[in-house]
Amino acid sequence: MTQTPAAAASADTDVVSPAPMTPSQYGVGARFTLSVYDSDYVRIILEALSAADASELTIETTDISTFVGGSEQRVLEFLRDVITTAARSGAHLSAGILLSRGCPGELACELPAGVAALGAAPIALAPAGVRARAHWSLYPLLDGGSTGDHMTPIYAAIADAKTAGVYSGSDHFATRLDGDLAELLEVAANGWIGVGGVVQHVTTHLTVSLNSPTKISDIG
Amino acid sequence: MTQTPAAAASADTDVVSPAPMTPSQYGVGARFTLSVYDSDYVRIILEALSAADASELTIETTDISTFVGGSEQRVLEFLRDVITTAARSGAHLSAGILLSRGCPGELACELPAGVAALGAAPIALAPAGVRARAHWSLYPLLDGGSTGDHMTPIYAAIADAKTAGVYSGSDHFATRLDGDLAELLEVAANGWIGVGGVVQHVTTHLTVSLNSPTKISDIG
Repeated sequence: MTQTPAAAASADTDVVSPAPMTPSQYGVGARFTLSVYDSDYVRIILEALSAADASELTIETTDISTFVGGSEQRVLEFLRDVITTAARSGAHLSAGILLSRGCPGELACELPAGVAALGAAPIALAPAGVRARAHWSLYPLLDGGSTGDHMTPIYAAIADAKTAGVYSGSDHFATRLDGDLAELLEVAANGWIGVGGVVQHVTTHLTVSLNSPTKISDIG
Repeated sequence: MTQTPAAAASADTDVVSPAPMTPSQYGVGARFTLSVYDSDYVRIILEALSAADASELTIETTDISTFVGGSEQRVLEFLRDVITTAARSGAHLSAGILLSRGCPGELACELPAGVAALGAAPIALAPAGVRARAHWSLYPLLDGGSTGDHMTPIYAAIADAKTAGVYSGSDHFATRLDGDLAELLEVAANGWIGVGGVVQHVTTHLTVSLNSPTKISDIG
């Protein structure tokens, strides 16, 4: 198994530390599907995508979902801006968002297991001005390496959601969040970054709902 | 922490093996969001939900997503039927689907880590008669127990997708599938069940797209 940079440094202190991996090399990015419950959805989606600042990002859109690669801060700013612009149309929206780190590739990672977990600074997002509700799941994965206790940052993520006032309860398989779209994204991303400091491969999934009519919330 | 049934049995071999957990006790189920890109979405969603056979299932719908609890076979039949009915409206749809096993609860599991992984028989679904494309991710999770090599069933799941003729390539963080909706659901669910035979907590996420216009596939 490949020796981690931390282990290499302690074994021979004369060795220069290798350059840290870029977000792209470490597989930092998002995949999201923006769904617009309106017959004018093509215009709303195209306008929302084209209005967002894509600088420093890799964007690849297919008929199923859109990939966004880049730093944690820029990826989340892009998601906030695309969803906010679409929400301002007034249409009911849902966005399925996957954030991933530590496993560039598909079902099997292209990084070997046991690469040192690469943390990142927490992100900070200015408010979006649109209210959102979400189901949120956070996944520390078995196929990478773990160098510490992953439950502590998971409990910290739940505490952060409560401190930010966006924690709204728990449902099967997911935590419910409610608040400004940017606050929801910030809390979820920082939980993912926090667990990513001790676990190599971490993903988080958010299903975000905006402009939902009460008709849908009443069908349960 | 609560002692697991396996640990209790080895501590006292005179103890009769406990009854196997039900799918509900083991947290087998789905959470899904059906998005209809049409101004008539309320009618289409309500009709699709009400037309599907919900027998032997627990269904809870909120404004964000719908929970479906029950056996693997019945959960997947319900998902196939709801999505198929909605697709027959002709509207463009996407469905975000989460399948979970081995962790009833939210961010932190209510089962202790180290419960014996509870496999299940593979499911089999009759064709839906509607074509779907999907992005698929399969997650063996660090927070449960692992009793074996989880990579073997992951590679088997990819091989199954190729054998079924639904494997369509790989993108960042996801495998692309293309084929009859029921075949996609069957391949993804059986991959999840297969990994679930050796890992306690396994989730899989699918983003399924139906009736997509070429306009959307051309925007990349």
